[in-house]
Amino acid sequence: MTDAATNMRLKLPIICFILQIILIILFATLVQYDHDTDAAAWHNGNHTSESENDFYYRYPSFQDVHVMIFIGFGFLMTFLQRYGFSSVGFNFLIASFALQWATLMQGFFHGMHGGKIHIGVESMINADFCTGAVLISFGAVLGKTSPIQLLVMAMFEVTLFAVNEFILLSTLGAKDAGGSMTIHTFGAYFGLMVTRVLYRPNLDKSKHRNSSVYHSDLFAMIGTVFLWMYWPSFNSAVTAHGDDQHRTAMNTYYSLAACTMATYGMSALTAHDGKLDMVHIQNAALAGGVAAGTAGEMMLTPYGSMIVGFLAGIISVLGFKFLTPILEEKLKIQDTCGVHNLHGMPGVLGAIVGAVTAAVATTDVYGKGMADVFPDVASGEIGASYQGVRQAISLAVTLGIALLGGLIVGFILKLPVFGAPSDAICYEDSIYWEVPGEEEEAHDGQLAAVRTTETEKLNN
Amino acid sequence: MTDAATNMRLKLPIICFILQIILIILFATLVQYDHDTDAAAWHNGNHTSESENDFYYRYPSFQDVHVMIFIGFGFLMTFLQRYGFSSVGFNFLIASFALQWATLMQGFFHGMHGGKIHIGVESMINADFCTGAVLISFGAVLGKTSPIQLLVMAMFEVTLFAVNEFILLSTLGAKDAGGSMTIHTFGAYFGLMVTRVLYRPNLDKSKHRNSSVYHSDLFAMIGTVFLWMYWPSFNSAVTAHGDDQHRTAMNTYYSLAACTMATYGMSALTAHDGKLDMVHIQNAALAGGVAAGTAGEMMLTPYGSMIVGFLAGIISVLGFKFLTPILEEKLKIQDTCGVHNLHGMPGVLGAIVGAVTAAVATTDVYGKGMADVFPDVASGEIGASYQGVRQAISLAVTLGIALLGGLIVGFILKLPVFGAPSDAICYEDSIYWEVPGEEEEAHDGQLAAVRTTETEKLNN
Amino acid sequence: MTDAATNMRLKLPIICFILQIILIILFATLVQYDHDTDAAAWHNGNHTSESENDFYYRYPSFQDVHVMIFIGFGFLMTFLQRYGFSSVGFNFLIASFALQWATLMQGFFHGMHGGKIHIGVESMINADFCTGAVLISFGAVLGKTSPIQLLVMAMFEVTLFAVNEFILLSTLGAKDAGGSMTIHTFGAYFGLMVTRVLYRPNLDKSKHRNSSVYHSDLFAMIGTVFLWMYWPSFNSAVTAHGDDQHRTAMNTYYSLAACTMATYGMSALTAHDGKLDMVHIQNAALAGGVAAGTAGEMMLTPYGSMIVGFLAGIISVLGFKFLTPILEEKLKIQDTCGVHNLHGMPGVLGAIVGAVTAAVATTDVYGKGMADVFPDVASGEIGASYQGVRQAISLAVTLGIALLGGLIVGFILKLPVFGAPSDAICYEDSIYWEVPGEEEEAHDGQLAAVRTTETEKLNN
Repeated sequence: MTDAATNMRLKLPIICFILQIILIILFATLVQYDHDTDAAAWHNGNHTSESENDFYYRYPSFQDVHVMIFIGFGFLMTFLQRYGFSSVGFNFLIASFALQWATLMQGFFHGMHGGKIHIGVESMINADFCTGAVLISFGAVLGKTSPIQLLVMAMFEVTLFAVNEFILLSTLGAKDAGGSMTIHTFGAYFGLMVTRVLYRPNLDKSKHRNSSVYHSDLFAMIGTVFLWMYWPSFNSAVTAHGDDQHRTAMNTYYSLAACTMATYGMSALTAHDGKLDMVHIQNAALAGGVAAGTAGEMMLTPYGSMIVGFLAGIISVLGFKFLTPILEEKLKIQDTCGVHNLHGMPGVLGAIVGAVTAAVATTDVYGKGMADVFPDVASGEIGASYQGVRQAISLAVTLGIALLGGLIVGFILKLPVFGAPSDAICYEDSIYWEVPGEEEEAHDGQLAAVRTTETEKLNN
Repeated sequence: MTDAATNMRLKLPIICFILQIILIILFATLVQYDHDTDAAAWHNGNHTSESENDFYYRYPSFQDVHVMIFIGFGFLMTFLQRYGFSSVGFNFLIASFALQWATLMQGFFHGMHGGKIHIGVESMINADFCTGAVLISFGAVLGKTSPIQLLVMAMFEVTLFAVNEFILLSTLGAKDAGGSMTIHTFGAYFGLMVTRVLYRPNLDKSKHRNSSVYHSDLFAMIGTVFLWMYWPSFNSAVTAHGDDQHRTAMNTYYSLAACTMATYGMSALTAHDGKLDMVHIQNAALAGGVAAGTAGEMMLTPYGSMIVGFLAGIISVLGFKFLTPILEEKLKIQDTCGVHNLHGMPGVLGAIVGAVTAAVATTDVYGKGMADVFPDVASGEIGASYQGVRQAISLAVTLGIALLGGLIVGFILKLPVFGAPSDAICYEDSIYWEVPGEEEEAHDGQLAAVRTTETEKLNN
Repeated sequence: MTDAATNMRLKLPIICFILQIILIILFATLVQYDHDTDAAAWHNGNHTSESENDFYYRYPSFQDVHVMIFIGFGFLMTFLQRYGFSSVGFNFLIASFALQWATLMQGFFHGMHGGKIHIGVESMINADFCTGAVLISFGAVLGKTSPIQLLVMAMFEVTLFAVNEFILLSTLGAKDAGGSMTIHTFGAYFGLMVTRVLYRPNLDKSKHRNSSVYHSDLFAMIGTVFLWMYWPSFNSAVTAHGDDQHRTAMNTYYSLAACTMATYGMSALTAHDGKLDMVHIQNAALAGGVAAGTAGEMMLTPYGSMIVGFLAGIISVLGFKFLTPILEEKLKIQDTCGVHNLHGMPGVLGAIVGAVTAAVATTDVYGKGMADVFPDVASGEIGASYQGVRQAISLAVTLGIALLGGLIVGFILKLPVFGAPSDAICYEDSIYWEVPGEEEEAHDGQLAAVRTTETEKLNN
């Protein structure tokens, strides 16, 4: 990790161009329009109405998810005082790569039709979901990695994500529509392990930049609020049509509202002098969405959703207050955004809630809707309690793959060729960006004088 | 209102936790999934297609409304230079509480089925609407109230909102899809009465903070523009399916465009030296949405909508320029955001326009669509002119309940236990929030030097 | 262009009021609800379901386009350090005017039914599209024109846009759903010609304000990212229902992702010291949306879309780096936002791609879907290669009308009555806006002291 390596002039163009050309070649050989996007196929189909095209069931949800990925994650991370360009900008770059790569990786594992990957709005949502996991991991290493490291991380993480997702959904038969396990638990523990391997003992040299300023906290709130508002769409985007999408969105809505109440209460209780801490509000208030990611599509009931959200908010604030310092000092895990508190623990909570809710499912409650939520239970192949076991095993598998994967990828990222910043210049945009000045402070007095004079002239 | 009282360490956790636990208990005992969100019920129904689920008719509109409530109202209020955290943050808190409480209160009055409240996307929209009224009142008292006062206010206001809404829609048979009366008029006059009761004679001690700075005005424009863009969804979110939603959205679109033209013209005409005033642009340009809230679903015609918006913009700017100072000096109403100009007067205008438009409705114009817009007129029960009378009475009822309710709630909020800030520290985030510094001004020169040196080193 | 002329006290109100009153009169005499928005007409129709109303097919896309017009374009232009109010604010004003005027102009040319213009959600999208072209031209003259000049420009440009659109779509039978030609090429070259005619030889007097500061670049990223995210909705908003909307959105999604990869690579390659340049990221990353505007609805294939986006990103960055300085020095074209690089060249690229893709269309690939995309080819009236010729001619016509129109309108805007700013006070909000101070720098030290004292008092 020598300093000169941070110059991106050749490295970044080379990796961007090579990756994109590979993507184009693979898409050309492997990817096709699916039935609902192909002109010939759709018009050959028997449709009572154009409104039966999956576009109308899922595209509004897709757009909400898309906003969460690019505005939500991007701006959430702008809280750092001198890292706004990188937060939004690297988020933009790695998400643009990851969504293309995810289309292929997810397609390999569960979208092949006659040797071709068929794509449409549902695969777009799944690609954005996979990208979300990468961005969660990005939060753990924020400020300490070069864009090249991030692209390399994304490449491996997307691949492992697709493997884990395939095992959970196709092999184990688990349900995880909103990704408490596949997205949040996976992304968080993968990122935590990467940041552990990349541990920087002298990071306190950059400590003065690892904090917010007034306006950067407001920019971050744009990210927080968009994530919060659109989370019901996130959790419901790929559930079955009809009551499933409807119920999932509503469960998430109440989970988040309850979580926000818990977050404000806990923040005042634990923070300095009873004052609210922006870090808690920006992050912990979202834990209710994470925790409703698995059980949201089930008959969790509105009050059940509220309990889940309430617990998630409490756990998350406690994590920021007490666990993050321990992780850093004892376990040497430098978690910039606190993803363990927002995605890690609430993700595990969500997985557990999902397992329990699945285990107590009855035909009384689900009726014929059981076939949408738990098809193997509906068909009589397994009992509900066994579905619960599947869910629990899925959590364990996710944790295993995430931690092992993060370990390996972390060591890959340590290779001294990716242009990581030195310890003294972490959390600093000017390493990778041309950064303009702040408001021309120097001659602001002069400027104001000029302005006044100019304005006076105008009015005479 | 002693100073020590502003410490939130115990008060805020206690109220948040008690309220949320009560909500959970009430939801557990009273609330159920409705037909379109319940797995068993939906799958027992006879549906030609999953697209008949109300989710697909209303969820995109719901999400737009949701953005208005959390981003729109939240950021609109960030115009104050030192109150951005509180504006977005308290907006977030009280909205999260209010939408849960509103689900119950509105359910009691018009959503009961066999002793249970049935909820789905329509009740979610209505809960957000009710929350909107609370946030309007928040605008009137912005900067002068503690989060606890705001939660207490929300609790009472939501209840009274539900009572008023029940009287208007169910008892009087009025129409008010976009809430010119139920939301805007009610929220504004309720808030104005509360701020009247909470009058602070020595508020000029905080006067220097009751203004904007350059960047805070840009943050506020995020709120303004999102409110403006999504207002067509707001007014059309709960109208009947089909032409009604379609027409309402379009009427609102033209009303807002015309209102914006009027606002810019009036702002240049009335403001200092012919320069535009950000306060007008941020607020008055939205009055066209408020004023189309009642008549938007009717056959108002596009040019009728434009006239309504045009008038609303003119009235609103005039209010900011001439009425607000009078209200403050003569009537002792300290209206921080000028909600009287954005929601009060345009709301009343909207109610009157609604009454007139209803009174002139004919079967010629509405055809069989009359049953959607004015069911009692369509059934022959009443004549159109009587529907107009109903609308006018509804306005009077709304004003009465809002003013009386605000009076009582204002006195409750005066109890010296809620942690209100003293007159000298209003409009100041640091009372309730841990606030970071501004851009490290102190050693910015040094820092810049460090950066240059570091960068030079890298390039050698 | 005397200084006194910049006072807007009378000029702006007069033009706003006259224009709006004319609009209201023309709407009253000419505009009617269409079949899907009219209560009587819709309820007289034969509909299997309310979901057949065009509202449900297009309204979510409309709202996304609406966000692009008002937040996207508005905030994209806030990158200038002292022109944020004008960027968002004049964008808001001229868009509000243009969308009303466009309803009429587009209605005259292709929406007349028995002497009346019929409007609904599709005409709203088209009006927003036309507004987009005006805002592109605004980008070219940003900082150098008064709001009155902008309104006058909008009036003429909307008219010429409607003429060009009519020639392309109705007379020549070209396809251009996302407007590579009608919107982007037209808006860019029109604006470039206007700024050429308005050339200011002494503009370097304002050079110090023609740049960004740290936070203004972050505000601009809000615009960029919303444009990027919603561009799939933009290109698919008015295509045929079903597979067409679905496919267009997906093609645009991949085009943009590939474009972003190319943009980052090229930015690091061409910019100073291998650092990324915010100007490139904010603009060039969007070129993939522009370039997919014509061919997006065709069977371009996902990898074809990626190639188009990849090329667009490369061309766009190269344009910013090498062409913009030449345009300014040699051709005297002062293009503030670099619209030639974002809309001009990528628009032409998109037109060419559209022509080629049309020319190679076969019944094998499109099946019965050919009737949606190329109706004249499907009906056997012309061959696919002739459709390609039509597309190419359309590009030439668009360039001709844009350049000639911009020339004439540029000279009109030179009339010394519209209040243009003098060369020394360009890119400066305080000419047209009441501007608050920056953060009270002067007594910030004092203030901080006061705050500390106050807080200490509270805690005792």
